[in-house]
Amino acid sequence: MSDVGDVRPERAAAISGWDDEADVVVVGYGVAGACAAIEAARAGAEVLVLERTGGWGGAAALSGGFIYLGGGTPLQKALGFDDSPENMETFLTAALGPGVDAAKIHDYCQGSVEHFEWLVAQGVVFKEEFWGEPGWEPPADQGLMFSGGENAAPFNTIATPAPRGHLPQMADKHTGDKGGGYMLMKPLVETAESLGVRAEFDVRLQRLVVDDDGRVVGVVARRYGKPVRVRARRGVVLATGSFAYNQEMVAAYTPLLVNRPAAAIEEHDGIGIRVAQALGAQLAHMDAIEVAIFADPQVIARGILVNGRGQRYIPEDSYPSHIGQSTLIRQNNEAFLILDEAGLEEALGTVSTFAASRNEPPTWVAESVAELESEMGFPDGVLQATVEVYNRHAKDGVDPVLGKKTQWVKPLGTPLAAFDLRGRTGGFTLGGVRTDLDSRVLHVAGDPIPGLFAAGRCTSGISAGGYVSGASLGDGSFYGRRAGRAAAQA
Amino acid sequence: MSDVGDVRPERAAAISGWDDEADVVVVGYGVAGACAAIEAARAGAEVLVLERTGGWGGAAALSGGFIYLGGGTPLQKALGFDDSPENMETFLTAALGPGVDAAKIHDYCQGSVEHFEWLVAQGVVFKEEFWGEPGWEPPADQGLMFSGGENAAPFNTIATPAPRGHLPQMADKHTGDKGGGYMLMKPLVETAESLGVRAEFDVRLQRLVVDDDGRVVGVVARRYGKPVRVRARRGVVLATGSFAYNQEMVAAYTPLLVNRPAAAIEEHDGIGIRVAQALGAQLAHMDAIEVAIFADPQVIARGILVNGRGQRYIPEDSYPSHIGQSTLIRQNNEAFLILDEAGLEEALGTVSTFAASRNEPPTWVAESVAELESEMGFPDGVLQATVEVYNRHAKDGVDPVLGKKTQWVKPLGTPLAAFDLRGRTGGFTLGGVRTDLDSRVLHVAGDPIPGLFAAGRCTSGISAGGYVSGASLGDGSFYGRRAGRAAAQA
Repeated sequence: MSDVGDVRPERAAAISGWDDEADVVVVGYGVAGACAAIEAARAGAEVLVLERTGGWGGAAALSGGFIYLGGGTPLQKALGFDDSPENMETFLTAALGPGVDAAKIHDYCQGSVEHFEWLVAQGVVFKEEFWGEPGWEPPADQGLMFSGGENAAPFNTIATPAPRGHLPQMADKHTGDKGGGYMLMKPLVETAESLGVRAEFDVRLQRLVVDDDGRVVGVVARRYGKPVRVRARRGVVLATGSFAYNQEMVAAYTPLLVNRPAAAIEEHDGIGIRVAQALGAQLAHMDAIEVAIFADPQVIARGILVNGRGQRYIPEDSYPSHIGQSTLIRQNNEAFLILDEAGLEEALGTVSTFAASRNEPPTWVAESVAELESEMGFPDGVLQATVEVYNRHAKDGVDPVLGKKTQWVKPLGTPLAAFDLRGRTGGFTLGGVRTDLDSRVLHVAGDPIPGLFAAGRCTSGISAGGYVSGASLGDGSFYGRRAGRAAAQA
Repeated sequence: MSDVGDVRPERAAAISGWDDEADVVVVGYGVAGACAAIEAARAGAEVLVLERTGGWGGAAALSGGFIYLGGGTPLQKALGFDDSPENMETFLTAALGPGVDAAKIHDYCQGSVEHFEWLVAQGVVFKEEFWGEPGWEPPADQGLMFSGGENAAPFNTIATPAPRGHLPQMADKHTGDKGGGYMLMKPLVETAESLGVRAEFDVRLQRLVVDDDGRVVGVVARRYGKPVRVRARRGVVLATGSFAYNQEMVAAYTPLLVNRPAAAIEEHDGIGIRVAQALGAQLAHMDAIEVAIFADPQVIARGILVNGRGQRYIPEDSYPSHIGQSTLIRQNNEAFLILDEAGLEEALGTVSTFAASRNEPPTWVAESVAELESEMGFPDGVLQATVEVYNRHAKDGVDPVLGKKTQWVKPLGTPLAAFDLRGRTGGFTLGGVRTDLDSRVLHVAGDPIPGLFAAGRCTSGISAGGYVSGASLGDGSFYGRRAGRAAAQA
């Protein structure tokens, strides 16, 4: 084991001199790190952010920018949507999978309105406009959207649907670098700078430094190949992102994601998780993944999705992250989308939210379901049975099998088109170290590791398997703030 | 955090006196511990086994006793089955899930014949008789069976099917305490005793003891509420079993198994994993689970299994652990079994391998598929479509949708019966600390933790998500031996 790759903690007593120091050292300048830095500085701490790339932003700045908020935010109210923390909690508990951290979900929902107001106070702008059509993201700079299938089966029968995908207003979606994520990060970093937060770039975390009592008192990093020792007088905040790009960790914990990382950045190598593990940190939900399916939701909603056996398996008007997860985890990553000509034409006439797939020709076209079934290679009768059952109820505008909403339910006619969506998924990891409500990293013995805090995707947050868009920037920013406050007071 | 629950290592320098000592200390007297003890003793070490219950056996002694072996064992050859290590490796790589430890699978397959011969040499008896009908286990004392769906789709197209479920001959299946697992453990423990292995019972592991260089040099345990400090001159072998009965760990790592542990024992609280985590041990596949479905495979094979949408999802002649996994993980734990009267009568006339379910009356009976569909509460047409497609091909004796073998494929007639199998699953955990081929526990930094070895279900073994019966006692005994040898030489 070379010294460079060793994540074992270094003993403070063995360090002859520090290269830099601060009260609170934040590792990683994505959304969790920025929020931690702001709150630590506001709490009176001298803050130093160590970022491994050449600039701030992390995966957050490149993302769509959704923050999952609710419970009756001013934006929800202004746009006419009722919500309550309890309603939000009911939904999230159902949607984020069995095994959720119930205390964290409750805490997050109770604090959601305040968190929205805090983001606005830091300069994040949310335009008062709702986007209600199927999509991964709004087509323009709208500020609110259903981003978790709240209005689709089965969730629309579990809690009162309310849109909670809050999106910072884009300056120019099409330049790429001024999307929602950028417009979230820019004011946060500017706020941090205005508070005197110092940032050092091209500094890559190697391991933690602990004193003789086991307290974390600094980090060892590398800058241009040379070691840098940074003392943290009050605490270290890990905000280093997911492990989606660590092939070995992905294979060990969530192998379905091997070779398909998405919506993450290459720097997401799990280093924050590993240095914490070396101190005995507890982990949770290491198999949990966000999964996207790369196809236009406007098209999906107007067709039927079938698996490798030609069977429908999910309401096609679900938020696409649910479709992605179900396809990869439950359907062997096999999906086919089937529409009739009228449905496809209607879809192509809508405002696209996923333009990349709009020019894609159907993989198969056919004059009848039987012909399509044969061309797609399904056994005789399989697809015909699926369409027959769908159409039997669709003529009455209902989908008793899966609960697709009436507005999307029409009998499939002819001619037909089918798209091969096999293998068309990708995503990022949701598991990591377990933290408490103050973002203190918990030891496997159950108590916090002194001096060590974490937030964002190096932690196991509010998701335990299920996912809704905005949950990751949501808990990353929410618990990033907590981490900053707790570290400053440590 | 009370001292009793603290899994943090104790420093050797802080221990004023040892209560006991040996060259190799093995924690847990199940199959992994027994095999480790034997090999450590044979390698010249003085061995002490610490067992938390009042007697030897662990979960192994209460289990069916399958050991997954192949590659051309004398038992396979005597019963006329061809196999090779390469063929076995091809099958296991496909069956045990993405993300398998390829080096370990290769190693296990290459060593499988030798391991069989070793077990026989320790006194384990395998009767030269094959059982070829559907079942979890043979009905009597047969010694060989297909225990992983090797002869069912899709595996029968991936590798040449060979039965590899090797079962120690039962003395009396129906007394319960002389089943295959007992008949595996008894000769192993007798061998260990004959080699001078000492065992202490009612001794419960609390934490490890490390010296100033980070080497594991002993354990702290409790006996009747009092601490016991045991020195290990050469090494400690963890063989403490799964975490299936640790509710908090199950909720954190594999929440689908909450409230449904099975084929494990209450002592399986993950303590071996936690004490190793406190030293920075690497983990793997913490979500992986073995899942049983509690229904008679003789009945299942003669019917069709449908999910909550009335769709078939797995060949009904699969080995039932595949059915259990697919049902719990992919079908929301919803399964219904449908047979016609002739099929059910035929099933009830066979030799039962799961007698408990034989007296269970059908949940629903009906004169037609449409009537059954309605009684079961399925939307109109769903079940009719499934049966129509099945019967369309079954009249030719084929199942192109899922590949059930011809011998089990007959058109469903009337009247019909259906069994509600929702929620009828349970299982144990397969994830744990990562070990190398010498059963050394790996640190998250990648290198072994000095003095620490592990085997059995506190480790991540050859399974990475998929499961075949016999894999757990298989890798537990195989790598238990390695652990004993490596610890003795440490």
